[in-house]
Amino acid sequence: MAASIAVENLNPKVLKCEYAVRGEIVIHAQRLQQQLQTQPGSLPFDEILYCNIGNPQSLGQLPVTFFREVLALCDHPCLLEKEETKLLFSADAISRAEQILATIPGRATGAYSHSQGINGLRNAIAAGIASRDGCPANADDIFLTDGASPGVHMMMQLLIRNEKDGILCPIPQYPLYSASIALHGGALVPYYLDESTGWGLEISDLKKQLEDARSRGIDVRALVVINPGNPTGQVLAKDNQCDIVKFCKNEGLVLLADEVYQENIYVDNKTFNSFKKIARSMGYGYYGECGKRGGYMEITGFSAPVREQIYKIASVNLCSNITGQILASLIMNPPKVGDESYASYKAEKDGILQSLARRAKALEDAFNNLEGFTCNKAEGAMYLFPQIKLPQKAIEAAKAAKKAPDAFYALRLLESTGIVVVPGSGFGQVPGTWHVRCTILPQEDKIPAVITRFKAFHEAFMAEYRD
Amino acid sequence: MAASIAVENLNPKVLKCEYAVRGEIVIHAQRLQQQLQTQPGSLPFDEILYCNIGNPQSLGQLPVTFFREVLALCDHPCLLEKEETKLLFSADAISRAEQILATIPGRATGAYSHSQGINGLRNAIAAGIASRDGCPANADDIFLTDGASPGVHMMMQLLIRNEKDGILCPIPQYPLYSASIALHGGALVPYYLDESTGWGLEISDLKKQLEDARSRGIDVRALVVINPGNPTGQVLAKDNQCDIVKFCKNEGLVLLADEVYQENIYVDNKTFNSFKKIARSMGYGYYGECGKRGGYMEITGFSAPVREQIYKIASVNLCSNITGQILASLIMNPPKVGDESYASYKAEKDGILQSLARRAKALEDAFNNLEGFTCNKAEGAMYLFPQIKLPQKAIEAAKAAKKAPDAFYALRLLESTGIVVVPGSGFGQVPGTWHVRCTILPQEDKIPAVITRFKAFHEAFMAEYRD
Repeated sequence: MAASIAVENLNPKVLKCEYAVRGEIVIHAQRLQQQLQTQPGSLPFDEILYCNIGNPQSLGQLPVTFFREVLALCDHPCLLEKEETKLLFSADAISRAEQILATIPGRATGAYSHSQGINGLRNAIAAGIASRDGCPANADDIFLTDGASPGVHMMMQLLIRNEKDGILCPIPQYPLYSASIALHGGALVPYYLDESTGWGLEISDLKKQLEDARSRGIDVRALVVINPGNPTGQVLAKDNQCDIVKFCKNEGLVLLADEVYQENIYVDNKTFNSFKKIARSMGYGYYGECGKRGGYMEITGFSAPVREQIYKIASVNLCSNITGQILASLIMNPPKVGDESYASYKAEKDGILQSLARRAKALEDAFNNLEGFTCNKAEGAMYLFPQIKLPQKAIEAAKAAKKAPDAFYALRLLESTGIVVVPGSGFGQVPGTWHVRCTILPQEDKIPAVITRFKAFHEAFMAEYRD
Repeated sequence: MAASIAVENLNPKVLKCEYAVRGEIVIHAQRLQQQLQTQPGSLPFDEILYCNIGNPQSLGQLPVTFFREVLALCDHPCLLEKEETKLLFSADAISRAEQILATIPGRATGAYSHSQGINGLRNAIAAGIASRDGCPANADDIFLTDGASPGVHMMMQLLIRNEKDGILCPIPQYPLYSASIALHGGALVPYYLDESTGWGLEISDLKKQLEDARSRGIDVRALVVINPGNPTGQVLAKDNQCDIVKFCKNEGLVLLADEVYQENIYVDNKTFNSFKKIARSMGYGYYGECGKRGGYMEITGFSAPVREQIYKIASVNLCSNITGQILASLIMNPPKVGDESYASYKAEKDGILQSLARRAKALEDAFNNLEGFTCNKAEGAMYLFPQIKLPQKAIEAAKAAKKAPDAFYALRLLESTGIVVVPGSGFGQVPGTWHVRCTILPQEDKIPAVITRFKAFHEAFMAEYRD
C-alpha cells in the first residue's frame, strides 16, 4: 500500500545514481537466461557467460579447501567434539577453527560481534597486514565490513555534506564510487587515467582537475585510487604512489585506497605496494569468495573524535557477518610452511593465479587481433578494458536505438553470443572513445570458445557496420 | 593522512545521528571488561552481562542444530561426497543442503548472487510466508539483506528527499529508526505508545501527530510499526492492525512493518498477525542468529518503476551474504513432521521459547517488586522496558554529572553489577518519565543471580538518593 509513492517523488539522489555493472545489459541477460531454460534452443547460444562482474566462483573457480574447512567447522562447532571429524577435515583446519572459536566470546558464531568485528579476528588481520607491509598495524584501526561496498558508503557518508563536497575519482572508475557519491549527494571530480601509457595516473592531471574543481567552488575532500585498477587492470609503480601520497598530504585530501585486488598481479615486473602507512586499505583477492561478503577497511591518520564518528556509523548496522569476518582473517593469515594444508593451499592458490595470468594474456592477445580493438596489458585485478573504434554507421545505429555506442555493441554481443560485458560508459571514459570491461574469469578450457564466439560476432558486426 | 578532516567539517547528518544501543554505556562496559581481564578482582563483579542488545547467542543460547548442519555442508560441499559425512550429519540436513546447492548456480556458495538474493532461496522464503499467512507470496517481492538494518536504510534512502520529509515512528522506538532517519536527513515524526494500556497504539494519537506534522509543513511519507514491540515487548491486536492499515491507506503512507520478532510471543491470549497483505515485513526471530546477518524484506504495493529503483539501490551493494541468505530460507522452512531432524528441531525451538517466556515473567515480576518500578508484561520480542520513578535527588545528581537521569542510573548499575542495560532516553519516552530496556536473554540459571544483583543495587541506589 504505497499509492502516493511514485518515481517522481522519490529521493532524487536515488534516481540520479547509476550502476552499470548490474544495469540494463545484465537484466536483459537474466531474461535471456530464463528464455534458455523455458525454450531451449531458441537462441543462437546455449549459455549466458557473465563476464560483467568479478565473480570467479560463478564461472566455476573452486574455493580454497582450507578456508571452507575452517568455515564449516566454525558454523557447526559440535563437529569438533566428534572423532569422525578427523577423517573429514585436515588437522590444521581443526586447530585453526578451535583457535578462532576461542577468540569469539562464548564460541558464539551466531552472535552479533563488536561493531568493528570480533577483536581476535581483527588482531589476526592486523598481524597479516603487518607482515605484508613490514610495519605495525593496529586491530583498533580495522573495520570488518560486508564486502567493500559498506566501507565505501561509510566514508562517503562521513565526508559528503552537500553537493559542493567533491571526491576525486579516476575515469574510468568502478561505478560503486560514482553510485555512492550520487547517493550521498556529493560531486564526482574526475581525473583521467592515460590509456596511452597503460592507464597511467598523472599527478599533473590530478592537480589540474583539483584546481578546476576548486575554481568552481567545490570543496574537494578525498582522492579515490584503485590499485590494481578496476576496470583498467594496471598496477601502480611505487614512485607514482609516493607522489600520490605527497599530493594528498599537500592538498589536505583523504586518500581512499581501494586495494581489493592486491594479490592479483600477473606480470613479473610489477609488485603490489599498499598505501597502508599513510591511508586506508580494503582487501580481498584471488580467492573470489564474493558471496561471503567479507572485507576489511583500515583507517589511519584520523583524530579520535573523527574515528568515534566512524565507529558510530558502523554501530548503527551492528556488525558485519561473522562468516565473512572469519574468512577475512583466514585470507590475511593463510596456512604457513609446515602446516598440513600448506601444500594443497599453495597449489590451489598458485593454480588460480597462474591460470588467471594465462587467461588474461589469451584474452588480451585476442582483443588486440580484432579490427579496431586496442587492449592494454592486464597487470592485475580481474579485468580487461579494451578500446573499440566503432564505425560511424554503428554509432548512428546506436543513436537511432537511443543507446550509447558501447552499450549498443554490448547488447548486440549478448544477443548473438550470450557473453555479458559492461559498456565503458558505465565506468566513464574519455569522451568520444568507447570501451567494454570484460573479466578474465571464464574457466580456462572455455577461453578458446569465448574468443571464437567473440571474434565471429565482431567480424559480423563490422561487416554490417563498416564505414 | 587526513589532517584537514575534523569533526567540525564532517557530514552534520552523521554528527546528529545517535545510537544508544551501542552508545556510551556499552563503550564503558567494554572498558570494564578489559579491566576484568587485565586486573581480575578489581571490580565488585566478575563478569559483564550484556542485557543491552537482543543477542541471544552471546549470552549462551545454543544455535538450532539442523540450521548449523545445513550451513556447514553448504560452506564445504565436498563433505557431501564423503561416506563419513553420514555419521556426522542428519539425513535431512544432507538432503536439504543438496537441495539448496542445486538452486545455486554452479553450486557456488562463494559467488555473488542476484542482488535480491538467490532465486531458489527467495522461492523457499515466499513459500514459508505463504504458508504462514495463507495467501500467496512472490519471490520477486523478496529482498534478502544483511540483517534488518540495510532494509531500513534502503527504504529511508528511497523516501527521504530532504528535512521536510517525515517518517512516523513510535516512541519509544528502536533507535535504528531515529539513526537512519537522521543519517538520511529526514524528520522523525513521533507518535506515543500508551504505557498505561500496555504500550497501546492509539489511532487517534497517530492522526493527531500526523496533522500536527503536516501543519508544520512536513510531508509525512511512511509509518513505522514494530510488532512485537521493541523496546516495549507488546503484541498488537488484529483489530488494531486493521485500523493501522486503513489509516495508512487513507493518508497515503507507506507502512514499514518491522516484524523481526514474529515468532517470539510469550502469552497465550495474543497471536502474531503479519502486515503482509498490505505492506512489507522483515523476519528473523527466536533462533537469534544475529551475527549471520540474514534477513528478508518483502515489498508489496509499489509500482514497477519504484521497485526498479529499490532493486538499483540493492544492486549497488551487489548482494547480501550467502550464509545469511541460506539461513533465512531455513528459518522460513524448518524441518517438518516426518523429517529426521523434526523432533530435535522442535525440542530446541520449544525449549528456547518456553525458557524465554519463563525468564520474561521472572524479570517482569522482579522489576515490579522494586521500589518505584512499574513494568508492563513482555508479550513478545526479547525486551522489558520498565518505568522507574527516580527520586528528585537522583535526578539532580544526574544533572550535576551532565547525564540524563536514566543514563545516570544505567551507568551506576553497570559500575556496581556489570549488568548492561540501555537508558530509555535512547529510545524516546514521554518527557519526564524514565525507563531502561533490559533483554530477557541471560541464561535461565543465571536469572536469579541477575535479579539479586539488580535488587541489591537498586536498594542501595534508593537508600543513597531517596527524597
